[in-house]
This record gives sequence, structure tokens and C-alpha cells, in this order.
Amino acid sequence: MTPIDPAPDPSWGRWGPDDERGALNTLGPRAVARGLACVVDHVAVSLAAPIVAGRSTGAVGRPAPAHHMLRDGGDYAAGLPERGGFGFSDDVITLPTHGVTHLDALAHIWKDGLMYNGHPSTEVSSRGARRLGIHTVGPILTRGVFVDLVPAGRSWLDPGEAVGVADLRAKLDAADVTLEPGDALLVRTGWTQAWIAGENDPHRWPGLHADCADWLAEQDLALVGADNIGVEAFPSSDPDCQVPLHLALLRGHGVIFCELLDLAALAETGRSTFLFIASPLNLVGAVGGPVAPVALL
Amino acid sequence: MTPIDPAPDPSWGRWGPDDERGALNTLGPRAVARGLACVVDHVAVSLAAPIVAGRSTGAVGRPAPAHHMLRDGGDYAAGLPERGGFGFSDDVITLPTHGVTHLDALAHIWKDGLMYNGHPSTEVSSRGARRLGIHTVGPILTRGVFVDLVPAGRSWLDPGEAVGVADLRAKLDAADVTLEPGDALLVRTGWTQAWIAGENDPHRWPGLHADCADWLAEQDLALVGADNIGVEAFPSSDPDCQVPLHLALLRGHGVIFCELLDLAALAETGRSTFLFIASPLNLVGAVGGPVAPVALL
Amino acid sequence: MTPIDPAPDPSWGRWGPDDERGALNTLGPRAVARGLACVVDHVAVSLAAPIVAGRSTGAVGRPAPAHHMLRDGGDYAAGLPERGGFGFSDDVITLPTHGVTHLDALAHIWKDGLMYNGHPSTEVSSRGARRLGIHTVGPILTRGVFVDLVPAGRSWLDPGEAVGVADLRAKLDAADVTLEPGDALLVRTGWTQAWIAGENDPHRWPGLHADCADWLAEQDLALVGADNIGVEAFPSSDPDCQVPLHLALLRGHGVIFCELLDLAALAETGRSTFLFIASPLNLVGAVGGPVAPVALL
Amino acid sequence: MTPIDPAPDPSWGRWGPDDERGALNTLGPRAVARGLACVVDHVAVSLAAPIVAGRSTGAVGRPAPAHHMLRDGGDYAAGLPERGGFGFSDDVITLPTHGVTHLDALAHIWKDGLMYNGHPSTEVSSRGARRLGIHTVGPILTRGVFVDLVPAGRSWLDPGEAVGVADLRAKLDAADVTLEPGDALLVRTGWTQAWIAGENDPHRWPGLHADCADWLAEQDLALVGADNIGVEAFPSSDPDCQVPLHLALLRGHGVIFCELLDLAALAETGRSTFLFIASPLNLVGAVGGPVAPVALL
Repeated sequence: MTPIDPAPDPSWGRWGPDDERGALNTLGPRAVARGLACVVDHVAVSLAAPIVAGRSTGAVGRPAPAHHMLRDGGDYAAGLPERGGFGFSDDVITLPTHGVTHLDALAHIWKDGLMYNGHPSTEVSSRGARRLGIHTVGPILTRGVFVDLVPAGRSWLDPGEAVGVADLRAKLDAADVTLEPGDALLVRTGWTQAWIAGENDPHRWPGLHADCADWLAEQDLALVGADNIGVEAFPSSDPDCQVPLHLALLRGHGVIFCELLDLAALAETGRSTFLFIASPLNLVGAVGGPVAPVALL
Repeated sequence: MTPIDPAPDPSWGRWGPDDERGALNTLGPRAVARGLACVVDHVAVSLAAPIVAGRSTGAVGRPAPAHHMLRDGGDYAAGLPERGGFGFSDDVITLPTHGVTHLDALAHIWKDGLMYNGHPSTEVSSRGARRLGIHTVGPILTRGVFVDLVPAGRSWLDPGEAVGVADLRAKLDAADVTLEPGDALLVRTGWTQAWIAGENDPHRWPGLHADCADWLAEQDLALVGADNIGVEAFPSSDPDCQVPLHLALLRGHGVIFCELLDLAALAETGRSTFLFIASPLNLVGAVGGPVAPVALL
Repeated sequence: MTPIDPAPDPSWGRWGPDDERGALNTLGPRAVARGLACVVDHVAVSLAAPIVAGRSTGAVGRPAPAHHMLRDGGDYAAGLPERGGFGFSDDVITLPTHGVTHLDALAHIWKDGLMYNGHPSTEVSSRGARRLGIHTVGPILTRGVFVDLVPAGRSWLDPGEAVGVADLRAKLDAADVTLEPGDALLVRTGWTQAWIAGENDPHRWPGLHADCADWLAEQDLALVGADNIGVEAFPSSDPDCQVPLHLALLRGHGVIFCELLDLAALAETGRSTFLFIASPLNLVGAVGGPVAPVALL
Repeated sequence: MTPIDPAPDPSWGRWGPDDERGALNTLGPRAVARGLACVVDHVAVSLAAPIVAGRSTGAVGRPAPAHHMLRDGGDYAAGLPERGGFGFSDDVITLPTHGVTHLDALAHIWKDGLMYNGHPSTEVSSRGARRLGIHTVGPILTRGVFVDLVPAGRSWLDPGEAVGVADLRAKLDAADVTLEPGDALLVRTGWTQAWIAGENDPHRWPGLHADCADWLAEQDLALVGADNIGVEAFPSSDPDCQVPLHLALLRGHGVIFCELLDLAALAETGRSTFLFIASPLNLVGAVGGPVAPVALL
């Protein structure tokens, strides 16, 4: 199963040949402290989009979330007695890990059969990811930096609309923010609002342009997030490389991606920096992790 | 469907007749600030137990978590070409909301057909909870207070072993901690370690004794959590009231319960207070919310 | 929970007050013999539509079928050794019971809170059907009578197109077939072919007209089947009674419905009578039963 | 992915190099007629074991069946009005295809990376079986031959108990039955009754001995079925070949296996021959097919 042309990324091995945590290695007490230094209002804003049974993002091959009751108030209304002095409800959920607000595990993407740090894609089989699974991630707390890509007066970017690195840097400059190693960069496209309104295009979505890849890689970020399906605009301009940012950042540098965020409430606060908190479900072997991230302002 | 004897709890109505957030109303910037005041090391400790496919808690009627791959490295090894310049994996999970580390929504428990604040249990049907669902909870950030109920030298409490209010208060006194309104109290029984070791009893578990109900209710907590199936010891001593703490705290005062935590790592730190962070999946209509809580020390 | 106006159907009680099998009581050795008398070619024709993962009928509230591999050839290609001298694959399916070729259990439909024979709808709760579930049905073998409602030269009937009792009787007369008690009547609308072609309307489908109800009820059939979502045309002409055939036949007389058949191959044989065989999955408590029926010509 | 040592079975290619139906090619009108010639009583006996939510066979890696209500009588009891003049229930099921009464597709088993007729196991990936899936099977109608392996006075064979070819042949002789090409042979071990009684051993089960392989292969059967997990006794006596009958019959000759039958009712009839009917769900790409087989006596 050895790929013919491994083409290892230059940055692999930075944290050791067996490393599975990638850019998460930039986190720790200093990143927490940097994030905490931005907290002034003590207000927590949820960045989680609603998860609604039967409501899919439309991405091909991903089922809609499902929600089934194991026990409910109707059962009691239909005659079930309250035993032991109480009644209760219970339920079960089925979620596409990449079809709700989630983190991509580093096991999510590869090229030429190699994932981040050269781990072979064959580590991911029907039994899940033996390497780079979401259970290796744990809580992420660091400084969050928010950039609203949606111009004033518009509700969301158009399907396929790509925001390039010059625009991105200009917006950061305008907000007087300099990215630092270990930061979590969040960009808003408005896609989630379009999706909630039923006006998204399931085959194309707005996001970052491929030309952001190199510059973002240089920033040594821990995480890049967006309120769309894949952070980067889709389709990309290069048919032979449809996910350039995933390859450069996630595969190349082990940067975690956070997708399908809802950034509308955060945008309304006008805040650019905060403590970013994301603690994915501790799913052993999963390649994506549902999460309800928080911005602590 | 009107219950014959509604027996409303004296505390209902405190936050208004339509309130669905209960003790979460005690939260806000002051609670966040109180929690942040405990942060000294800037270290985040995960309180989430591992979620393993096929590994159930054994509670009757709750299925085991399931994890299925939609796409994996094996597919490529079997001949699938990397199209568009990349390969990827994808997956789907099925979770019993009350069978993994989770928050109980206030729609989880009732008596005489009435849930917290008098909302009728008939609000919970096959379509989920119209009232008091987990989507009403959002991020919880407040001061966390930890009490280790496991005596030195033991790995876990015995099945059914109940720790009473005197013991609980003595341990708080020994730690020199006074509970305050809006705190999140976490107690460790060791059950999760017994479960991981395969030595738990699915029909009985250790936890808080029924005699804790009144005193805990007086503390005006936002949340009570434990590393067991239901915070309180089961079975309780009273066959006519098997979940006295759920009734007094969750139903009576709208206190959120957090269950199936893994508190071993937190216990090892020796810390009693910290910033407690729990942001449940934003599941519209669910009666429980999987979560990976964090203690920020 | 007692309905205010029970309005029991005149035919209830025919097979006793506790009967759960309805028109299946007309079956037995004589029905089998009548069906076998039609067998001349010894050729079995499948009447089962394909079940494809992710491909739903579009009916509101019914998820698409799902199919997940627990083990597959890719796992071995990725390095899993063949232990014990063999390799294997395994899988799991999730099916909406009424979203694939299926039988309606008598627990599927009610009016004024009463199902067939006066059984209350409260017998059906989150734990499934305690009465009239699909497990009470068992194998159905009887004479099948086929009527092709699609006029020569057309591929399928239009959305909402309803075929009335006069047309239905004329077609039976033209085929020189007289319905007999215990027969299984199958009618073809072409809907399944429209669905396979992606040209169906999920909100309206062709089928039998409401005016067929009384005459069909008089025929004392065991089963009525069709290649559409609900045998009868939808919507019906009466907004206050959207499923008149279900109420008259299934609820009133305990006649089993068989839906989402694929009748194209049978139509091509030109045969009107045969041995009809349908043996639903033995699902305890389910209200519908996936099945792959057969016409033995 | 080409196996180093293909070791093609001598019988491969009998039905052409691309054949996917194996021993099903022995079926057709003559097999149906041979089966019909055994029908004397016109009585249909179900051979399907009950499918109960949460009740697994205990085989490692196979989840229990699940059954969830999408709509039920409790919802109406809780206040949902009957719209359009009717109420209804609906549900969804999740089944391990090899954990309920089912047919093995020929894609279920391989050795050295090759399935029946030399089809590579890499045809089976996360998207299902492109070759040899259950959708290639269709209805099976042929003469059924029943042999009760359980000695008089015992309820079931012991875990791991293996019945050899001499015993099997002696029982066929005693019943005065000679197997013919295209027959479906069903053997009873009593395992299903042990399972229903909760007295089965999930790690060992009774069945046919490995020494039956050659003789059975010579009989040119269409199908071999049993009321246990895998037709053959498990574990087998040879640690290097744990499924010798699967390899010889299913992989070598394309003989379909039917497992987890309930043969108690058939045994009580005392009949040895009948029309065997099994029509699996038409699941595109699945490697097993749930089914409710019938013996028509």
C-alpha cells in the first residue's frame, strides 16, 4: 500500500515523526493566556449552527441528521404509568460528523495516500481512524481572531465567491489585528445564514481563495474556521486541486479546520479577538468531531 | 392530558411563567468572572469520557454508540482514485444522548405529567421537545467546584453506594469551598473508571444520597455533574421515588445535570475550583446533549 | 384517552373482538390452492423496487435508506490480514419501513383514535405496536390479480391522476377476471418507474380514486397493492378525508396494503393472475414491513 | 491489489467468467416445478425468527436491531390533531444484515482476496458491493429439503457441537430423500430456540461439521440454510480454516447460505420436502439480505 510518490511536506516531522496533533502543539497555557487577555465583557457567544433532524447541508453523500425518541411524553399520554415516581424522555441522534458544526480531524484529508506527517491513509478503515482521529484533539482554547468577509449591506457571499489573501490581510489590518502562532482564525461568509434561509447552493459555496494557502501557512495558526462547508471556496479554480487550503494547512501543517459555524451573532458584537473555545465530542476513531464552539468576549 | 394533581413546585415561576432555562438564569458575566478568578495555570482539562462504538453503559433501553465510515482509506486502497487532487474520509455517528458524556435537558424528567416550571410532558413527542429541549441551554461557563467522593485508597465507590449530605458538606469544608449561586458542582464516584475497566454494575451505581436534595436546592446551583449515569445513587432507598435529586433539582429548580463525566484527570490535579465550560451540541428538540466539558484551571 | 365518538366500523368484530389479522383471516389452504391453480410457467417475477442508500421517495418525514459497511474489502486492501483463513464483509441497513417496498401493518392508520377492529391508537407508542404490528401478518400466499392502470403508449400516470371504480371494473372485465374473497389485487400506476427516472412529484401521486372504496370493500380482498406511495391517489378530492381507501379497507376491513411495488416486469408478462407471495420481515412491533413480493406465473 | 496466489477454485467459470449468481443458475422453472410437486397441504410455514429491537445474536461487531417510531399513537394522545381525517404511525428500522434471518450474498466471504468466481474482494468497499451483492439474488423458489439435526428428546445441540457428513447422510436416508441439483437444504440445530431462551453461547454454536464440505459441494445445491449464525459449527476444528463450508460452498460453488432461520415450526410438521421460498430485500450493494423465508407444504 506504499504510495509510489510520497512527496512529504517540508513541515512534517516538526513535532516528531509520530506526531498526531500537528498545530495543536502550538497550544497550551500561553495560548490560553493570550485568549484570556482578550476577554473584557465575560459574555459567551455560541458559534454552533442549529442541528435539525432531516435538514442536511446538501453535500453529496452526507445523510441528514436524524433524531429519534426512545421514550417521550406521548408514551405516558397513551397510558404508560410513571413508575418509581417519575416520567422521563430519552432519545438517540444520528449525525454526519462533517454535516454539522464540527472540527475536521487530521485523518479527514490526504494526497498520494499520505495524511499529515506522512501517516498513511490506510490507517483509516471501516473501524475508524487508528491515527489522527478526533479523539487526539481534545479541548482547544486559544485566542480567536474573527474576520467578517461579508461586505456591509450584503447578507452573504455568493456561491463560489472566493476571498483572496489581499482582501483577507486588508481586513485584518483594518481591524488592527496581527495573527500570532497558535491563533484560531474564523472567517464569516454568511453561508450558514443562506442555508438556514434555504438559499444556499449545495454544489458551490463561498470561502477563502486558494491564494490564501501560503500566507496562512506562514502564520502558524492552530485552527482555521468558517461558516461554510469547507473553509475554502468550492469549487476551486484548479480542477486538479479542489481543496488547496486543506492540503496546505490541514495536511501540510496539521492545522485543524472548523466548519459549518454560525458566526452571525459574533459578527453583531463587532469584536475581532476573544477566547476561542472548542471541545469536540470525544469520539474514538472518528474523522470529524461535532462541537458547539464558544467565543468568550 | 391535564394531570389530575399538578402539585407545582414552590420555586416555579421564579423566572417567569414561560421560562425554559431555569437555573441557567443565574449565569452571565458575573458567573464567568467568578470562574475566571479561579484560573491560575491556564491549563484545560477534558472531562469527557471516551465514546467507543459498540460500548454501551448498559443502561436498559439505551443503544450503544455506533460509528460508520462513509468513505475511508480502505476504499482508495481498493482502487478508488484520488479525484480532484485529494482523498478523504467521512463518517456518521449514532449516539444515545444519555449514554455518553452529556447534559440533561430540562425536558428529560417529569412527575405527574409536569416538567420544570409546569411545562406539560406532552410537549415532548416523537418530533422531540417543543419546550425545554437542549437547544435552549447554550454554552455554560461558570465557576466549577469539584468534590472527590472516592476515599483515598479506593478506585471507585461500590454499586449503589450513596454519599449523604453530611459527607458532602464535610468535604467542601475540608476544601475550604463555599458553594455560591450559579456554581457548577461536580462530584466524582469513580464509576467511569469502573466502566472503562468493565467492572461496573449496569443496574446499580454510586452517587449522591437522596438526603442531599434539600440542601443542594438551597445552594442555587446552575448545574450538578458526576461521573456516573445519573448523579444520584441508584437505586434510591425509596421505591416510590427513584430519582429524588432529579425531581428536587432538575424538575424543581431547573438545575441542569451533567452525567457520565470522566473526572479522573481533574481529580489528579487536586484542584477544587476552576472555570467550568460545557457547550452541548445544538440539537433542536433533543432531550439530552452530548458534550465534552472542560475545566480550565 | 377514550375517543369521544368511536364510530366503530360495521365490519369490526367479524373475526372476533380481539382479532388482529383482519382480512388475512380469508387466507389459508384454499387461497393458496386458488393461487397455485394460476401457475403455468413456473416463473417467479420479483415485484420489489430497488432499495438504494440515500435515495428517498421524497415523502415528508421519511428518511432515505442508509447502508453502512461494518467490514469490507477495502479494509483488507488497507492491510487487515485474513484471519482464520478467510476475509469477509458485513453491513448494516437503516430503512424507513414505509419508504421501501412494504406492507402496511394494520397499526399504520386510524381515525378518531381507533384502528382496525376498534383497537385504540394508544397501543402504538415509542416502543412500537403492541397490537396490529407487522409481526402479526406472516407469509401471505394467495391468488394475485393484476390490473395495469397505465394506458398503452404512456409510461406512467400523471401526479394526482385518479383511476375510478368504473375504469377499474372495466379493466378487470376486459381481462376476464372476477375478484374473489381472499385475492390480492395489484394495480400499476407507473409511479415507481417515474421515481426511478427522477420524474415523480413527491407531493402528489397517481392511484385509485376514492370512489373505489365501497366496491373494493365488497370484494373481501386480503390485500391491495400498487406501485406508488399509498395505493390511492394523493391528494384525494376530499380535504377532510385524505386517505379514504386506507380508512375503508385497511381500517374498516383489515385489508393489508402493499406499497412501493415495482410492477413493470409483471406488466410485461401480460399475465392477470398468478400466485402472489409476500412474506414481510418478522419485525416485532413495527408498523410496516419491508418485503420483496413475488408473482409466480 | 492482485493477490499473490489466486488459487482459483476448479468450479469457477462454470457459468461464465463474469457470472455473479453461482448456484442460483441451477434454478428456474424446473426447480419451481420440483418444489411444487412436494406441496400437498397448501400450508405456508414461516421460517423467520423474530426481530426484536435491542436483541442481538451476540456475534462480535454486529449491532442489535433498532426500531424507532417517527410518529405514533402517543403523539396524538399528547395533543396532535388528526389532520386530513386520519391519524397514522410510521417507523424506521436499523438491521445488521447478518444479525437477523438472512441470505449471505456471495460478496460476504473471500480467501486470498478472491470471492466466488474470482471476483476480487476489492469490489466491496464503503459504498457496498459492486459485484455479488444481494441485489443479484432475487427470489429463490425451489424444492426445500429439511433435516432435523437435533436428536429426539433434546431441545438444541450444544455450543460447538458439529454434525458430520455420515450423520447427515444417514438422516437423509432415513427420510428417504435424495438431494438433487438446485435443492435448498435446511438443517436444524435448535440454536434459535436456545437464543430465544437466552441460553446460547455467543462465541460457539452448533452446526455442520467441516467434513460435510466435499459431499455437499457434489450435490450441486442452490442454497444451504440453518437455524444458527453460520450454518457450519463454530469454531471449526482447524484454526487455519474457520469457515470451511463457506469457502467450499459459498466461495467455491456460489451456493447461497441462509442463516438465523427459525425451524421449530417446520420441524413440528414432520415434513422433509416442500416448496422453499426466500425473496431477500432488494438492497442494492448489500452483502446480506434480510428475509422471511417460507416453506409451502
